[in-house]
Amino acid sequence: MSRASDDLILSRFEPLFAPRSVAVAGASASLAKPGNRFIEALRKHGFKGEIYPIHPHAPEIDGLTAYPTVADVPEPVDYAFVAVGAQAVVKFLRAARNRLKFAQVMSSGFGETTHGIELEAELVRTAREVGIRVVGPNCIGLYSPRGKLPLLGGAMDAGGGIGVVSQSGGLSLDILGRGRVLGVKFRAIASIGNCADVGPNEFLDYMLADPETKVIGFYLEKLRDGRMFFEALRNSQGRKPVIILKGGQTQQGQRAAASHTGALANDNRLWAAVIRQTGAIPALDLNDLIHHFAAFQASSLVPEVGAGRAILFGNGGGTGVIASDQFGRCGIDIAPLNN
Amino acid sequence: MSRASDDLILSRFEPLFAPRSVAVAGASASLAKPGNRFIEALRKHGFKGEIYPIHPHAPEIDGLTAYPTVADVPEPVDYAFVAVGAQAVVKFLRAARNRLKFAQVMSSGFGETTHGIELEAELVRTAREVGIRVVGPNCIGLYSPRGKLPLLGGAMDAGGGIGVVSQSGGLSLDILGRGRVLGVKFRAIASIGNCADVGPNEFLDYMLADPETKVIGFYLEKLRDGRMFFEALRNSQGRKPVIILKGGQTQQGQRAAASHTGALANDNRLWAAVIRQTGAIPALDLNDLIHHFAAFQASSLVPEVGAGRAILFGNGGGTGVIASDQFGRCGIDIAPLNN
Repeated sequence: MSRASDDLILSRFEPLFAPRSVAVAGASASLAKPGNRFIEALRKHGFKGEIYPIHPHAPEIDGLTAYPTVADVPEPVDYAFVAVGAQAVVKFLRAARNRLKFAQVMSSGFGETTHGIELEAELVRTAREVGIRVVGPNCIGLYSPRGKLPLLGGAMDAGGGIGVVSQSGGLSLDILGRGRVLGVKFRAIASIGNCADVGPNEFLDYMLADPETKVIGFYLEKLRDGRMFFEALRNSQGRKPVIILKGGQTQQGQRAAASHTGALANDNRLWAAVIRQTGAIPALDLNDLIHHFAAFQASSLVPEVGAGRAILFGNGGGTGVIASDQFGRCGIDIAPLNN
Repeated sequence: MSRASDDLILSRFEPLFAPRSVAVAGASASLAKPGNRFIEALRKHGFKGEIYPIHPHAPEIDGLTAYPTVADVPEPVDYAFVAVGAQAVVKFLRAARNRLKFAQVMSSGFGETTHGIELEAELVRTAREVGIRVVGPNCIGLYSPRGKLPLLGGAMDAGGGIGVVSQSGGLSLDILGRGRVLGVKFRAIASIGNCADVGPNEFLDYMLADPETKVIGFYLEKLRDGRMFFEALRNSQGRKPVIILKGGQTQQGQRAAASHTGALANDNRLWAAVIRQTGAIPALDLNDLIHHFAAFQASSLVPEVGAGRAILFGNGGGTGVIASDQFGRCGIDIAPLNN
C-alpha cells in the first residue's frame, strides 16, 4: 500500500484534532457523567464549534439541545466523544452511518478482556461498514490546544510542537501534567487505548505530515500490525525525532500489559532491532520520555554537524563532571579545548 | 584505629552543624563580599548565636563589632566561615589557635590546582598543629536547618532526615533546590570540596551516629583515604541507606573531575566492588540521587521482610506496566495475587 500524500493525510485527520462539531454520547440530563464533564471541559477551554449531546430521550442536556442519534443532528459531525456502555457502542455507530468522521470510544470492556474480544471485532467491522474511523476503545480522549479539545482532568495551554500517542489514558494525563511542569508544550496528545481501528502507524504518518509537530513520542504496549508501524517509522528517519517508551520491556511488565490493553508478549530483541533500523529513540521510563521532549524542544537539531563530539559549557564543576560522564556513556566525546 | 563511640562523634561534630558562635572572615566594611552575604543569610534564617566578623582593621561590619583575629574575639568560637584569599588562610588559622573548633574554608587555589598543592599541605599541617578541624577548602559551606546554617543562595526550611555530603559546592545547592521541589527534607548538606582534613569517612561516621539522619547521600569525585571510607561504609551496612553518586565514572568524566577537585582517575571496578561489598546504593546521576532520597523518605524500611518480592497497587494501567518493568530490571518479582 503506497503512502498517502501529506496533504491528504492532514485533511483526513483535521476533523479529529480540530473538529468543527462534536457529538457527546454518555452525558446525562441529571447526573455528572463523563459526557457532562467533557461538555463542561469543552466550554471551559473555549471550544468554538457546535456541541451535540446524544441521548435516547432527553430533549436537553446542560443547556444544549440533545438528539437521539447522530443521524438526528442537523449537520454531519466531525468528532464524537463516546462514553456509553460497551454494548451500546455498535448501535451508536450504526445510527451515525456516514454522518460522523471520528468516534473516540472511551468505553472499556472490549479487546482488553477475554469476553470483549468478539465485541471489539464487531466494533471494527461496523466502523468500516458505516464509514466512521474509531479511536480507542478503552481510552480517555484527545488533547489538542488548536482544536480546543481537552483531556478530562487536564489543563490546557497555548500548545507547542510535541505530539504524543499513548496506548495508556492515565499516562496521557501524566505526560500532559508532568510535561507542563518542565515547560513542555504539546501539539497534541492522543490517547488511543486498544487501537482497534486507527493505529499508531496512522498517527505517526499524520504527525510526520503535520508541519507544526516537531517531535513525536509514543507510549506503546502492543502493535496489531507491527510491519506497518515499522514502515511508517522507517519512513520517518531523519525527518523528526521519534521517541518510543515501550511498556512491557520485562517479562513481568508484559504480564501487566496483558491485563491492561490485552497486549501479547513482544520480543524485545525485535524492538531493539526496530529502534536500531529506524533511528527511533528508546525511552526507559516516563521521566526519560518527558526529558527527551524537553531536550528536543529546547534545542534545534543541526544534522550537518557530525555527531560524536560536543563542547560543554557550564559554571558548576560537579555538574560538568556528571554531564561528562553522561556524554561518555552515550559515546559522545568532550574533547578538551586548545588553549 | 578503633571507631569512636556514637556519643563522642556527635559531640565532636555538634559545633559544626549547630554552632553556638560563628566567625566570618571575608566580609568587607564597604562591599558585599561572600562574608557579608553569609552574615546576611545567617540573620535572615534566624541564626541565634553570636556572629563575629574578622577583619584586619575595620572596627565594625554590617552593624557587628569586628575583630582582627579569632584570638581577639571575647569567647572561643565553634565555626568559622573563611572566604579570604588562599594565601591568607594559614595565617587566619594560626591566629585562631585553640580558639576555634571548625574552619570551613571556601577559598579555592589549593590542591585542585598544581600550584596550590603545597599550600594545601601547609593548610593541613597548620590545622593539626593549632587544633582546628578544617572543612574544605574549595567548598561553599554547610546547610543545617537545626543550626540555622544556610547555604549561600539556598532557602531554608524546617529540615528532615536526609544527610548529604558533597565534594561539589554547586551540586550541594542543586541537591537542596531540586530536592525541595520533590519535597525532600534535609537534616544537613555538607559541601566538603577538596576535603583536605575532615573527609567523607568522618562525615559518614557522624551521620550514622546522628539518630535524626535517616538516609545518607554522597557526591564524591575522589577519596584521599579510600580504605577508611570503605571501612566506615562497611560499618554502615544495614543501619541506614547510603546512596553514592560517583562523579568521574567514565574516562572523560574523570578528566573533568581532575580539573575540578584534583581527583585522580579512579578504577571504577574498585567502586563497583565497594558498592557490592558494603550494600551502598549507586546513583547514576543527580536525579537518580534525589529520587532515591524521595523514595527512602517516603517509605519505611522493613528489614525483616525478605527482599525480592513486591505487591504493586495503583490506579493507572500504563503506570503499572512501567513500574512492573522497573521492578523487573531490579530483579524484584511482582507476583500476580491469588484470587
